[in-house]
Amino acid sequence: MTGIPIVVSAPSGCGKDTILEQLFKINDNFAYSVSATSRAMREGEVNGVSYHFTTREEFEGMIKNAEVLEYTEYCGNYYGTPKKAVEDMLSQGKDVILKIEVEGAMNIKRIFPECVLVFILPPSMPELERRLRKRGTETEETIASRLAQARVELTYADKFDYLVVNGDLHKAVDDLNSVILAEKMKAKRCTELLNEIKNS
Amino acid sequence: MTGIPIVVSAPSGCGKDTILEQLFKINDNFAYSVSATSRAMREGEVNGVSYHFTTREEFEGMIKNAEVLEYTEYCGNYYGTPKKAVEDMLSQGKDVILKIEVEGAMNIKRIFPECVLVFILPPSMPELERRLRKRGTETEETIASRLAQARVELTYADKFDYLVVNGDLHKAVDDLNSVILAEKMKAKRCTELLNEIKNS
Repeated sequence: MTGIPIVVSAPSGCGKDTILEQLFKINDNFAYSVSATSRAMREGEVNGVSYHFTTREEFEGMIKNAEVLEYTEYCGNYYGTPKKAVEDMLSQGKDVILKIEVEGAMNIKRIFPECVLVFILPPSMPELERRLRKRGTETEETIASRLAQARVELTYADKFDYLVVNGDLHKAVDDLNSVILAEKMKAKRCTELLNEIKNS
Repeated sequence: MTGIPIVVSAPSGCGKDTILEQLFKINDNFAYSVSATSRAMREGEVNGVSYHFTTREEFEGMIKNAEVLEYTEYCGNYYGTPKKAVEDMLSQGKDVILKIEVEGAMNIKRIFPECVLVFILPPSMPELERRLRKRGTETEETIASRLAQARVELTYADKFDYLVVNGDLHKAVDDLNSVILAEKMKAKRCTELLNEIKNS
């Protein structure tokens, strides 16, 4: 049985990274696809864990050699999904969490129609602005650009399979976990199990 | 916003009633459609709670007056879903758990295409037989008839949306709860919420 690709997208500031971090603490049945990016490393980020950080030139080489499943350019930086790692994990039967931008998510759906698309929403736009400001790492200009970008990304939300609101972190983590557990129980994904029981 | 009809079917002996009983203890966000039946009340069952117990004549009157959403005859008894109660609960925004047989489930899907069909499976057929025998309330003939019926019902399982295996009761309850929580997060069911956030 091959695993399920689970795509998680969210506007910047919605707490996607924190949710995924917490999720791994309560459910370790899946693998994590670490994206590659050409953007600068932020404080607290770890190369190979947060992202595979590359130069623009290195990233362009990966695109040229078809080593990324999908990629997008966002706020002047490349973001993409290294291909081989994902395919290996799926064929080993692991569910793979893919943390990617909305356009990348649409591309992944075309490559893996059986994938699950989850969009993480802020409880409200004013709350998203408050969170971006609270980070303290962004200029006013960047905050304005991220909010404008968030509004664009929200127009994709209805193309996703599930919407998870990150109002309360604990609830958002449980909600995302429920989505993944439920998807594993979809009858169409359980034909082997069903046959085993029928023939027992 | 109207609620979601959630149909739960299972072969006799799969622990459907126990699972639903436990589910109500951890999640009271839904309402329960009590089926009507013309079968005899079993020890421990309560009229209006376990089922609305009727005579055959009363049940046939309900069919005639279109007061049941669906009904089926099983082991010589009628089982059906009273219509008005379900429609009232759904229009009040409540998710309604419908505990019905496989053919009834297929009928409900035709009436409410947005409903969710959950099939509860035994971990194996020998284990199902062991559980039926353990009840101690059934004759050998009834056990054989229920096992044969279970095999027929299992042929419908792949027409359901989700399969929940009742190996460990606690896990089965959590699994069913995850399915319901996940369904509430389906993007197609959250258009109002999404618009509220977009316009906030």
